[in-house]
Amino acid sequence: MTPKGFQFSAVKASIKPWNKEDVGLIVSQLPCAAAGVFTTNRVKAAPVLLDMKHMKGKTHRAILANSGCANAATGKAGYQDSLTSAMQVAELIGCKTDEVFVASTGVIGVPLPMEKITGAMGRLNAWLDVNPDGFTRAIMTTDTKPKSASATVTIGGKETTVWGCAKGAGMFHPNMATMLAFIVTDASVSKTVLKTALKDATDRTFNRATVDGDTSTNDTALLLANGAANGRPVKAGTADYKKFLSALSGVCASLADQLVLDGEGVTRLGEIFVERAASAKDAVRVARSIAGSLLVKTALNGGDPNWGRIVCAAGYSGVRVVPEKMELYFGEHCAFKNGTPTDVAEKTLADEFTKKRVVMRLVLNMGKAEASYLFSDISHEYVSINAHYRT
Amino acid sequence: MTPKGFQFSAVKASIKPWNKEDVGLIVSQLPCAAAGVFTTNRVKAAPVLLDMKHMKGKTHRAILANSGCANAATGKAGYQDSLTSAMQVAELIGCKTDEVFVASTGVIGVPLPMEKITGAMGRLNAWLDVNPDGFTRAIMTTDTKPKSASATVTIGGKETTVWGCAKGAGMFHPNMATMLAFIVTDASVSKTVLKTALKDATDRTFNRATVDGDTSTNDTALLLANGAANGRPVKAGTADYKKFLSALSGVCASLADQLVLDGEGVTRLGEIFVERAASAKDAVRVARSIAGSLLVKTALNGGDPNWGRIVCAAGYSGVRVVPEKMELYFGEHCAFKNGTPTDVAEKTLADEFTKKRVVMRLVLNMGKAEASYLFSDISHEYVSINAHYRT
Repeated sequence: MTPKGFQFSAVKASIKPWNKEDVGLIVSQLPCAAAGVFTTNRVKAAPVLLDMKHMKGKTHRAILANSGCANAATGKAGYQDSLTSAMQVAELIGCKTDEVFVASTGVIGVPLPMEKITGAMGRLNAWLDVNPDGFTRAIMTTDTKPKSASATVTIGGKETTVWGCAKGAGMFHPNMATMLAFIVTDASVSKTVLKTALKDATDRTFNRATVDGDTSTNDTALLLANGAANGRPVKAGTADYKKFLSALSGVCASLADQLVLDGEGVTRLGEIFVERAASAKDAVRVARSIAGSLLVKTALNGGDPNWGRIVCAAGYSGVRVVPEKMELYFGEHCAFKNGTPTDVAEKTLADEFTKKRVVMRLVLNMGKAEASYLFSDISHEYVSINAHYRT
Repeated sequence: MTPKGFQFSAVKASIKPWNKEDVGLIVSQLPCAAAGVFTTNRVKAAPVLLDMKHMKGKTHRAILANSGCANAATGKAGYQDSLTSAMQVAELIGCKTDEVFVASTGVIGVPLPMEKITGAMGRLNAWLDVNPDGFTRAIMTTDTKPKSASATVTIGGKETTVWGCAKGAGMFHPNMATMLAFIVTDASVSKTVLKTALKDATDRTFNRATVDGDTSTNDTALLLANGAANGRPVKAGTADYKKFLSALSGVCASLADQLVLDGEGVTRLGEIFVERAASAKDAVRVARSIAGSLLVKTALNGGDPNWGRIVCAAGYSGVRVVPEKMELYFGEHCAFKNGTPTDVAEKTLADEFTKKRVVMRLVLNMGKAEASYLFSDISHEYVSINAHYRT
């Protein structure tokens, strides 16, 4: 179920080398407040640079997205192409150019095929509809399935919906694990509050999930709120805000989950909870160090309850940890305590570590802060996809 | 060729589950100055903790090393075991306990088999000899070959030798890529100067080489200088120091090279030179980010000249870089300049990228500093070794 007042369309424009949807459009009938989170990479693709500029506007109406070409490392001409496509959408639906966001994912270093984008405009407009399925497919690259999620809450007596879709874990050529997420809601939220909510939600979800640790040139999450539910405005610090944030976070968490599970060659998910850290920053650093360790990821691939690698990755995280104070649990079973392994049977630990989703809990006993991280294993398939996709 | 006044021995003590040398001893006839570099991991193995304490002594005589057991995550009992084995060596060769260093590599979380270590002592002493070959084998774990290097320089008219050996890239159970390096020289060098020299040499070599980015609980590099060449003392800031540092760095560089090339499942080496960075720190961060990128490592595995991944990894290094100013070369060929790919033929770039050792040069044009990093690819074999070694 999608929020009131949003329409979607998708077209097969032959940007991808096979006959699949590759350009999609989201349009709101009403002007929206918008918030965005963009890649922290210093090398930013043209659509990211354009969106960061357009984000300064007050209202927004549409998102144009394409797969098959990232429009990255394309210089000034690439920026002009992104701008031109935004202008075309603005003309099509009758709004200002800076009310349109654009997003691209796919091969880098080649120009956006503008004749194909331009040629798709008429159909994108004609086919606008409340069904978002085509759009969710149009942003896919090496994703094996479309990813979407929704949540409904009641705000001021009005049913309010948050819906989002995402693509992840791999452009087909070259793969840079670009993540795009587009979230729309019919809640009434000011730009300022929306920005806070998106940051809160992404910090806990997308920014705590990793496949291979590489940060793409194109990573983008956009959130549009059009108020079409006619609920009362969501104000900061209210019960309404909590409800809205909870719905938004739920959608983001589901999308992050789907992204990692559909990561390239992923066979198993790991979830590390770091507890009783001295500070939130410490907790995140330890969790990220474990989630990013190649040795932990390969152990996860092999279903091997290799507690030593997890303790070791905590040790080199840069955070002050004391091995003698640590406790490490797989599921409910303690594998490491008092600086030494426990006598829990290897078989018991292995049973936890061969689940599809392995839950690990590292208690540092240094304070009261906590954080979690979702991550994937690294498999033969991952190496194959990334080493040989040109062959 | 090994330096004057050092002897080596090795014994098969059945700590490793196959019939190979697994305990080794290096003894200097004369008291040595010593320097050491130890893992920065907060979780340090017992032998590392003991060596850091013994390093406070003025003179040193011996290094006892074993493979097959890391004596890590073994608590207070493990520390006592390391201390006991150092005491046994001290008694054997007639020196103080704190003149003996110990090093262990292998399985973690299990106690050092003290009866086997103790049982080896007599033979270790009886078999001391100038031939170091047995010792270089005794420290191997998943290494496929022993690694050693030497250099000779003339200091004050006297022929002076630096010799070292190392093991790397993998304990057999579990693999934590522990690196051990032992370097001995007959130069006459004070403890203070030796410390500076070892830091200088390792910063440029061992600390600029990576297989999988994990930092072990046991990493150790030890350097002993016994002055047996009868050359004049090497003083800081002199031509002698430069000569000595050059010999030492040469030995460390050769060992680092051998370590990476013999890394688990390694099929190809990458060497990234970052030039014209704003600061040395920036240069190192950019080089490390590229050397550590899984996507760059898999591209290296596939022999794919994927310039986009290298530019991208520089972009997320945290260093301020400007894509339009960057130039990226594979061998002599420029792949990326002015923010876009050049028109150099894909085939030309691929020829560079399928060499056994791929040289990449990223010119940032932000200043005058530079740094380099040596790294390996990540292969199917790496995943297999690390995912399935228990099966």
